Amino acid sequence: MRVDLNADMGESFGPWPMGADRALLDIITSANIACGFHAGDPDVMAGAMALAVKNGVGIGAHPGFRDLQGFGRRKMDISHAEARNLVAYQLGAAQAMARAAGGQVRHLKLHGALANMASADEGLAAACYQGALAVDPDIILMVISGTAQDRAARALNARIACEIFADRAYTEDGLLMDRRQPGAVLHDPDTIAARILAMVQAGAIITAQGTHLPARIDTICLHGDGPEAVGIARALRATLEGAGVQLAQFEGTRA
Amino acid sequence: MRVDLNADMGESFGPWPMGADRALLDIITSANIACGFHAGDPDVMAGAMALAVKNGVGIGAHPGFRDLQGFGRRKMDISHAEARNLVAYQLGAAQAMARAAGGQVRHLKLHGALANMASADEGLAAACYQGALAVDPDIILMVISGTAQDRAARALNARIACEIFADRAYTEDGLLMDRRQPGAVLHDPDTIAARILAMVQAGAIITAQGTHLPARIDTICLHGDGPEAVGIARALRATLEGAGVQLAQFEGTRA
Amino acid sequence: MRVDLNADMGESFGPWPMGADRALLDIITSANIACGFHAGDPDVMAGAMALAVKNGVGIGAHPGFRDLQGFGRRKMDISHAEARNLVAYQLGAAQAMARAAGGQVRHLKLHGALANMASADEGLAAACYQGALAVDPDIILMVISGTAQDRAARALNARIACEIFADRAYTEDGLLMDRRQPGAVLHDPDTIAARILAMVQAGAIITAQGTHLPARIDTICLHGDGPEAVGIARALRATLEGAGVQLAQFEGTRA
Amino acid sequence: MRVDLNADMGESFGPWPMGADRALLDIITSANIACGFHAGDPDVMAGAMALAVKNGVGIGAHPGFRDLQGFGRRKMDISHAEARNLVAYQLGAAQAMARAAGGQVRHLKLHGALANMASADEGLAAACYQGALAVDPDIILMVISGTAQDRAARALNARIACEIFADRAYTEDGLLMDRRQPGAVLHDPDTIAARILAMVQAGAIITAQGTHLPARIDTICLHGDGPEAVGIARALRATLEGAGVQLAQFEGTRA
Repeated sequence: MRVDLNADMGESFGPWPMGADRALLDIITSANIACGFHAGDPDVMAGAMALAVKNGVGIGAHPGFRDLQGFGRRKMDISHAEARNLVAYQLGAAQAMARAAGGQVRHLKLHGALANMASADEGLAAACYQGALAVDPDIILMVISGTAQDRAARALNARIACEIFADRAYTEDGLLMDRRQPGAVLHDPDTIAARILAMVQAGAIITAQGTHLPARIDTICLHGDGPEAVGIARALRATLEGAGVQLAQFEGTRA
Repeated sequence: MRVDLNADMGESFGPWPMGADRALLDIITSANIACGFHAGDPDVMAGAMALAVKNGVGIGAHPGFRDLQGFGRRKMDISHAEARNLVAYQLGAAQAMARAAGGQVRHLKLHGALANMASADEGLAAACYQGALAVDPDIILMVISGTAQDRAARALNARIACEIFADRAYTEDGLLMDRRQPGAVLHDPDTIAARILAMVQAGAIITAQGTHLPARIDTICLHGDGPEAVGIARALRATLEGAGVQLAQFEGTRA
Repeated sequence: MRVDLNADMGESFGPWPMGADRALLDIITSANIACGFHAGDPDVMAGAMALAVKNGVGIGAHPGFRDLQGFGRRKMDISHAEARNLVAYQLGAAQAMARAAGGQVRHLKLHGALANMASADEGLAAACYQGALAVDPDIILMVISGTAQDRAARALNARIACEIFADRAYTEDGLLMDRRQPGAVLHDPDTIAARILAMVQAGAIITAQGTHLPARIDTICLHGDGPEAVGIARALRATLEGAGVQLAQFEGTRA
Repeated sequence: MRVDLNADMGESFGPWPMGADRALLDIITSANIACGFHAGDPDVMAGAMALAVKNGVGIGAHPGFRDLQGFGRRKMDISHAEARNLVAYQLGAAQAMARAAGGQVRHLKLHGALANMASADEGLAAACYQGALAVDPDIILMVISGTAQDRAARALNARIACEIFADRAYTEDGLLMDRRQPGAVLHDPDTIAARILAMVQAGAIITAQGTHLPARIDTICLHGDGPEAVGIARALRATLEGAGVQLAQFEGTRA
């Protein structure tokens, strides 16, 4: 039994730091590195790539909307061609920065509003992923289990890594509960760790009501910022290791 | 006897067109494509790459300062680390857009103020080229003959293509005459064509005073904008072909 | 009987020109000048303001989304607070550039996707207009007749100028026909001129089917770009003047 | 005897916080608020303006280069016309955001590399200040005593506020000692406070060697970031108040 732990990194910009990259790199096995459009810049990326290489962490490109002020969290109405080029450009930049640091990009995960929109719109998700696959047909697409992201990646016969979220409750449909619902976001490290261990062992998403929905679980998404982030990450890693779950990069097998 | 003809391309941005890319692609053999920092955006790059691939033109990355308003023509005081990362990032983006269009980046040429500064500052030139070589050790660096660019690229033992300018007069030192001097910029297509043919045949830069300075000449830089650009390009190509000079991409041999 | 003619201006950016500002300034009576977020930069604005002042044309701020690549034409999901600040900031910049050129901003018109969204969403329109009125309570809001823009501005008891479009067909609801419908965009200068004259004389929007919908008409929107723009503008102005309609800046009376 | 205390504020951007604005606002009497080019955005500015108004702190516009990644700290080679428009635009934006918050901009202080360049280049300083005065002829220019900034502002007969730095040593020429010199930057709150009190009482800059250079001292520049910032600010304020120096906004009299 094995699973990957992923978190966003390299989200600083110019003089503004963000996140606890160094602390997280001792815990996670894959890093999603911002590509300069919603966060990150060439210098920040160089630093994040070097850290990831040094720590043997799997490197992912984390492209988002060209909206620095909004951190890529504001929906933008872009065409499929724009989505394709947006992702291809950012992936290329990430590949170069990884290579210059002695590493390489293994996976790609969409960020923020682009990810949210692609979770609900298979056409948009397909456009984004086509942009990535045109650059690297072997790239592993990190997708949110059970969403349009997942369906689009499977339809493209891409290598995938299916993701669940450490600190988010799930509805009976297997989707993330709306953040505005009470209990949608979990905060207690022990609760989070026990719940995720149960999901990994069951090979299923366990909903807020306790229903088991069988699902492929390749990686667990941790948050990189917030005061609780590192504590939750450590607790989860310890719990999984204590139960004999191996923490290692996903293989990215095709569905 | 053979030589390459290069011009800048993909310098539109968003809704704003620039240049005569389509017309020039029938004439040149190598295109320097803007990478989104001083001009170009992912969509513009996708279009320029597709055109270059379709026309069998050699693709180059053309990185510049992150100064869209100033078109990368305003000097900026950046560190060597920043220069390295600036170039690596933009090269990666260009590689991805080329690959998505079915092509690949063969060469790299610095743009605007970054190019001017690197012509005079070997340390800066070396930093830029190290950024490129860290991403692709076989990339061909297009350098201005006889400048710090040239020296830096040779010191790095990189593949190079030495460039002269179609429409600029040269001083007795083999450098470009200051634009503000009378006669520094040539406008007559026939004069330009005859002069460049003579240089290619002589294997030498011919100064405004007629002195022959032996120089490696791999490629001739044409301008992509201005009302005269296409006319000059056509005249030059016709003159070279008429004299039996083969127009083809440079090999990029190491110095 | 009098009416104003308005057009967008100052839509160049850095090295990229756009529009026929000089030609239009002889024809229009009010100019909507881009404020640097979707187009325009401080230098472009300085030039456009100087031209407007010299030609005695009424100056308007034309704020849009912070999306240069998309020219402010891509919908973005922003909060009301963000809308308020976005508009206030751009209006202030326009006021300063107008003042430095010896003029002043009389009106404000929303641009692109922000305008489209505010035509349908009264809350968003109100937020934008509150941002403007907090900076200048006497500013004239140029609104599209009969839309949520119009309603929001009236509810705020603001000075308004009601706008119709020279080259767009209207539905029976008094709204712009979808551009994708046949006949939605008019191209013939004489047809356009005759139709607008009829509307101004009738004090009504005349729909594609010929229905008269009484409407306040303070200003006619002309397009500033495209090969036909100047020809249509000239024909319209000549027709209106020939019929004795005075062309002058709107008063901006409160509704 | 009275003096003003100033600090930079509103230097956050989008999701990235910077500085200790709230803590400093209890201590300083004038705030230099970033205008969106090197830091700050319309939302950050709205927040900073509201805080300044609420605390009765004098509001200043703090324009810088359009270089977010470099935080306006990298020299850029801009023309005088560009400098004029750059400053006018940002001042206008600040005025609008101040007005929307119920306040108004009293002063202007150049930021970062633009300030450094203007300290050494009177032509550039004059261009910047002309941009500001064209927008508001009564604006108070905060200048570094004894530099080209100071000379340019006096030559324009502008209202000025002469500034010294709390934590920087001065050379025998009355200029800031190069940061790379030992002792150039002071860290001990008590040393800083005693030294500044002595300067204010003497009406003179006291150099590192103890020489008294008579100088107009209207305001003391405090730093807004760094772990020591708030401690130094509090110590300085307490020392000045304890010695009977009144802390109040400068008058901005013409030289």
